[in-house]
Amino acid sequence: MKAELITIGDEILIGQIINTNAAFLSKTLNEIGITIVRVSSVSDDRSAITSLLDEFQDRADIAIVTGGLGPTNDDLTKHTLCQYFGDRLVWYPEILAHIEELFEKYVSTPINKKNREQALLPEKAKIFKNRYGTASGMWFEQNGKIVIALPGVPYEMESLMTLSVIPELQQRYSFPFIYHKTVLTYGLGESVIAARIEQWENNLPDTVKLAYLPSLGRVRLRLSATGFQAHEVMQAVDQQVERLRPMIEDIYVGIEEKGSIEQMIASRLTELGKSLALAESCTGGKLASVFTALPGASAYFKGSAVTYSGASKTAILGVPQTLIQAEGVVSPAVAEAMALKAKNAYQADYTLSTTGNAGPTQGDPKAPLGVVYIALAHPEGVESYQFQLGNHRHKVIQKAVNKALEILYKALTISS
Amino acid sequence: MKAELITIGDEILIGQIINTNAAFLSKTLNEIGITIVRVSSVSDDRSAITSLLDEFQDRADIAIVTGGLGPTNDDLTKHTLCQYFGDRLVWYPEILAHIEELFEKYVSTPINKKNREQALLPEKAKIFKNRYGTASGMWFEQNGKIVIALPGVPYEMESLMTLSVIPELQQRYSFPFIYHKTVLTYGLGESVIAARIEQWENNLPDTVKLAYLPSLGRVRLRLSATGFQAHEVMQAVDQQVERLRPMIEDIYVGIEEKGSIEQMIASRLTELGKSLALAESCTGGKLASVFTALPGASAYFKGSAVTYSGASKTAILGVPQTLIQAEGVVSPAVAEAMALKAKNAYQADYTLSTTGNAGPTQGDPKAPLGVVYIALAHPEGVESYQFQLGNHRHKVIQKAVNKALEILYKALTISS
Repeated sequence: MKAELITIGDEILIGQIINTNAAFLSKTLNEIGITIVRVSSVSDDRSAITSLLDEFQDRADIAIVTGGLGPTNDDLTKHTLCQYFGDRLVWYPEILAHIEELFEKYVSTPINKKNREQALLPEKAKIFKNRYGTASGMWFEQNGKIVIALPGVPYEMESLMTLSVIPELQQRYSFPFIYHKTVLTYGLGESVIAARIEQWENNLPDTVKLAYLPSLGRVRLRLSATGFQAHEVMQAVDQQVERLRPMIEDIYVGIEEKGSIEQMIASRLTELGKSLALAESCTGGKLASVFTALPGASAYFKGSAVTYSGASKTAILGVPQTLIQAEGVVSPAVAEAMALKAKNAYQADYTLSTTGNAGPTQGDPKAPLGVVYIALAHPEGVESYQFQLGNHRHKVIQKAVNKALEILYKALTISS
Repeated sequence: MKAELITIGDEILIGQIINTNAAFLSKTLNEIGITIVRVSSVSDDRSAITSLLDEFQDRADIAIVTGGLGPTNDDLTKHTLCQYFGDRLVWYPEILAHIEELFEKYVSTPINKKNREQALLPEKAKIFKNRYGTASGMWFEQNGKIVIALPGVPYEMESLMTLSVIPELQQRYSFPFIYHKTVLTYGLGESVIAARIEQWENNLPDTVKLAYLPSLGRVRLRLSATGFQAHEVMQAVDQQVERLRPMIEDIYVGIEEKGSIEQMIASRLTELGKSLALAESCTGGKLASVFTALPGASAYFKGSAVTYSGASKTAILGVPQTLIQAEGVVSPAVAEAMALKAKNAYQADYTLSTTGNAGPTQGDPKAPLGVVYIALAHPEGVESYQFQLGNHRHKVIQKAVNKALEILYKALTISS
């Protein structure tokens, strides 16, 4: 079964927001065996929306339309779909009651006419109540094609997908099984890996597809297969991963099973009952935010001493000023001292520290732009690593975060 | 002049990456007066790419194609475009020399055949050298339509756009002027604002468009106009902003002129020569990362004590344990103590602190889920604010970050 995603809203076309909904929808639909053939974004414009509704029917069975369901005048999706499907708007008393309840509970201002009109919905469509908001989901069907409209607010869309749309699709259709396995590597570029595994890649069976997913400092190799026999599909992929592994042993980090390396670290620390603290200079809180974005972080995460200025490394962490003066603030000695001091202050089992020049201007005259030191303090001692991460600020920060995660993940895997 | 964006790559359609390139491209093209009429993503598949190349010509003058220019076998864009335009691949010696130089300087592994073949490029296309990578930009022209192909790696694409594509477009065409002014508000929902400003909105001249951009806890009102007379266009928008202002005085934060509220805070602190430190519990480093993502942060940013565990609030910041026991870790008293202690430890002029329950489970039994206290310590004292930010973890964290930024921005504006 094939689907298209249609995102509606001027704010995407002028670059004011990033389309994160498409990634969630693609992933969620992919997991139940629906292939996404195209993702399109158009403005809040009746004719642009209508054209896409006409077009998608040649390529796919389902269209998921997000956005443009708000209460204001620039939101046109509901009216456009209603007209397209020859439907008419009627009051849904249950939805109206829900909207009134939301206002009473969570909103300090009184409900108005525009809010109430969110309960005016197409008569023939199937309506899904939005637990977190006033814009309902709508399911239209015509000539064997399905159009599902959802609000553009990410968490409202996500809850409607998870609680209503996916269960409804699974109840109606039987889907093939899609299986992905993503191998994490770091240290070598895409084309070097490609040259090294060329023979294996050329001999892959037709059922297994390989994709290279390069990102800052790492390449992920994704193997995928689709079929109605889950067992066969999984075996086909697993077999190939086993054959691949010895060829990339030196750059192999792990299998991206639980979504991301930070989630794997979180699970591992929680399992081991060990704790983590950080001491961040050049990553400036970004590394901490990667962990605290995950639910359950308090089980293992103690905190991070973000010491951006030189003086704060002494004042907050107690790194001796004489050491900073002698070695330079961007140095392996300072990285190790930061990690050890933070480990002690936070009473943590593992501590990562970062210090470096993220640019665009050179902070420490002793260390060139893009040089980053990362130290890991662990129950048996402390080690530091040097990296040259280029001269692009965001890239340096993100690469340093990635490197730090990889160092910790490797240490946790080996120590097990 | 109208453009379409075409993003190529399976990783977008299976939701493994978020399409951030589209936002950058839309914004950049919009700034020089090019309207984006559609953004499409398709997989690395010849026929899907070819269909889009056929289709866009009915709707737009330019297509910008990103992705699929890597050296590996799953990258098909170059070959597909070459075939589509009846062109053939030839060696570009200057590009080959550049690729060899990149390898010598930055890559530890030797260059291979696939890397060299990145210098095999279409003969008739205009080629743009990629300063940061081996995949060149390509500019095809046929029957008055332009197709520009760029690599999918964000910083490579961004540098090619800024250094080559935009200057080339500006040299060839004269564009109308597009002017946006975005008014930041917080504290009221979209529909309440809409009801309040309805009469003004209905009387807007045809030349001025209004869009509501709601996001966690804030609504941005964007006014836009387009025309060939820059002065008239700006005046039309500015006049309407002046009329709007008194209607929203109580929820008005400022004009989003320099991109974002954090950039405005950064400029203000740098101008005033004042410094900032943070003490973060529930925002867990996210607030720090917002500032340290900006170049020049070291001019005013001292650091952040991310004290996620209760014990670390005492160990790192020196918040008395008796206070935490008496008041609860999520309390105005602890928020204020965190801010004052961090202000002193970091020797900062302004300090923001956050403490709250981000969920999904309740940490402090005394404070319900979603309750967040934010304190601001400033040269004249300290104040704390209470918020109820819902029960969705990412949303609570992001809303708390937004609120903290707004509190600081308001304080810096008033104190001026």
